[in-house]
Amino acid sequence: MAELRCNPITGHWVIIAENRGTRPREISLEPVIHDQGECPFCEGHEKHTPGEVFAHRSKQTQPDAPGWQVRVIPNKFPAITNNSTRQTDSGLFAHEVIIESPRHITNSTELDETDFREVFNVYCERMLQIGMAHPQSSVMIFKNNGPAAGATLSHLHSQLVASRLPTADQKSRLDNFRGQKCPACEMMTDATLGNRVVAESTNFIVLCPHASRVCYEMWLLPREHQSHYSRINRESLPELASLFRQSLVKLERILKVPAYNYIIHTAPFDTTGADHYHWHIEILPRITTLAGFELGTGCYINPVSPERAAVELRQA
Amino acid sequence: MAELRCNPITGHWVIIAENRGTRPREISLEPVIHDQGECPFCEGHEKHTPGEVFAHRSKQTQPDAPGWQVRVIPNKFPAITNNSTRQTDSGLFAHEVIIESPRHITNSTELDETDFREVFNVYCERMLQIGMAHPQSSVMIFKNNGPAAGATLSHLHSQLVASRLPTADQKSRLDNFRGQKCPACEMMTDATLGNRVVAESTNFIVLCPHASRVCYEMWLLPREHQSHYSRINRESLPELASLFRQSLVKLERILKVPAYNYIIHTAPFDTTGADHYHWHIEILPRITTLAGFELGTGCYINPVSPERAAVELRQA
Repeated sequence: MAELRCNPITGHWVIIAENRGTRPREISLEPVIHDQGECPFCEGHEKHTPGEVFAHRSKQTQPDAPGWQVRVIPNKFPAITNNSTRQTDSGLFAHEVIIESPRHITNSTELDETDFREVFNVYCERMLQIGMAHPQSSVMIFKNNGPAAGATLSHLHSQLVASRLPTADQKSRLDNFRGQKCPACEMMTDATLGNRVVAESTNFIVLCPHASRVCYEMWLLPREHQSHYSRINRESLPELASLFRQSLVKLERILKVPAYNYIIHTAPFDTTGADHYHWHIEILPRITTLAGFELGTGCYINPVSPERAAVELRQA
Repeated sequence: MAELRCNPITGHWVIIAENRGTRPREISLEPVIHDQGECPFCEGHEKHTPGEVFAHRSKQTQPDAPGWQVRVIPNKFPAITNNSTRQTDSGLFAHEVIIESPRHITNSTELDETDFREVFNVYCERMLQIGMAHPQSSVMIFKNNGPAAGATLSHLHSQLVASRLPTADQKSRLDNFRGQKCPACEMMTDATLGNRVVAESTNFIVLCPHASRVCYEMWLLPREHQSHYSRINRESLPELASLFRQSLVKLERILKVPAYNYIIHTAPFDTTGADHYHWHIEILPRITTLAGFELGTGCYINPVSPERAAVELRQA
């Protein structure tokens, strides 16, 4: 059983999740993808995974059978604590995998714009479902693209975690939005922004943040203040998908190996007192290794300034 | 010139250090050690490095010449901001490299106990020197052992950073010590401690913390409450060196590749109001890859419980 623990000296939170210990990747130093035998995420292998909780699939096809475009299943190795009556509960109650294609593709940009839109649409719909069922929760969606970013199965997928409680990090982000002005809106009106824009469209912008933690970090933000990703105007999804895909293509032209995480940060479903939040997607390339300096001070060293990164990304 | 920046949404601190951009490792995904040509850290190659600031060397030998056992030099690629009059200053004023052997050895445990003692002695003396010259500063010493832990030169070395200002992390650690009881002293009297002890001696203990962030994390602590490493009783250094080396040997028997960071956390020199701090050394093996979950929530998933880790380490 998983258990949430906090170190009283460092303040770090940890989920001790021995049920995940069987994942071969975890105890291996080499970034190796373990696809032993048949890929459980490919169309036709639906029986090799837990039963689907949601899917975009053709009419008249059955759950857990071929005919889907995007498929959502529970994670077989969840980072979930089940002991909701104990103080050590992390508040996590769902950990799901979003399989992004029925075909065995392994890299985000192999999806075309239509496929991408479909994925972002499923993110939205699955979030809405969870929000309806659990209005006092919040959801985070993330992608580990490439083994250096922590991917353990090569077939393209992202993950969703739903929690009743915000983590310390999420709480401090929420707090950081409680000032007089929205810091995300301010990011987009910053006088130095021009040097750090990577790409833009009518409703969205992709920029390298002033305090980029890692080389070529990018954030996609909606220009209009909006607290929750799932409230996005569906008509703007094609625009979002196109701009996001274009940004990843630029990034891959710079990286030797496509290795990055992206994370959708959005407000808790009950936005009473959280309307000040501004949803956004963070793209974190995994080029450098965190070393003793970062682990000891909590401060990142970034050898590529966001101003230089934006020039390279714009031209890529 | 390096510059300190803070992200107003995430609260992360970053040093944008383009002067380090020439380090080849930083823009490479593969954990490759770059030893081009002659190793600048080997005895006889002293002229290839900046001039030494401290060394343990044989009498009648000259600075920056052969005859040393441990040698301290400024880091050629420092993570330092020089603009001390600007708000963006990080407060860092020294970033040094401690070369741990005149021979070209690449792994900590190739040092025997006497060599280890010598290294821990130099840590202590160099800290005292900096504390005398800059009584309002603090020092952190860390080691990146192996490329997966961020090492960029193979010749065994550790690093020292000295700062006028604590980082946000250091500040919060200091705050976490301000309660009625010292949390480090409490760690050593915890009723469940027995399950998590790896090794012990008269004055020191090595344990797996209850909330270990990573697999096989170990902390070495002095049993007696002591805020500052540099105030250690020199007569206990052989005991410290022996216990610490023994713990690393155990760790290496479990890891496939010796990859870990260790970090000496100690109070600021002026311990007025910081006597509650309890110095200790954290050993962080680098087996797993941080993925989107950790980067998004700030919460670690550890698939090997510290209780299981301690059993394996004790028996190793």
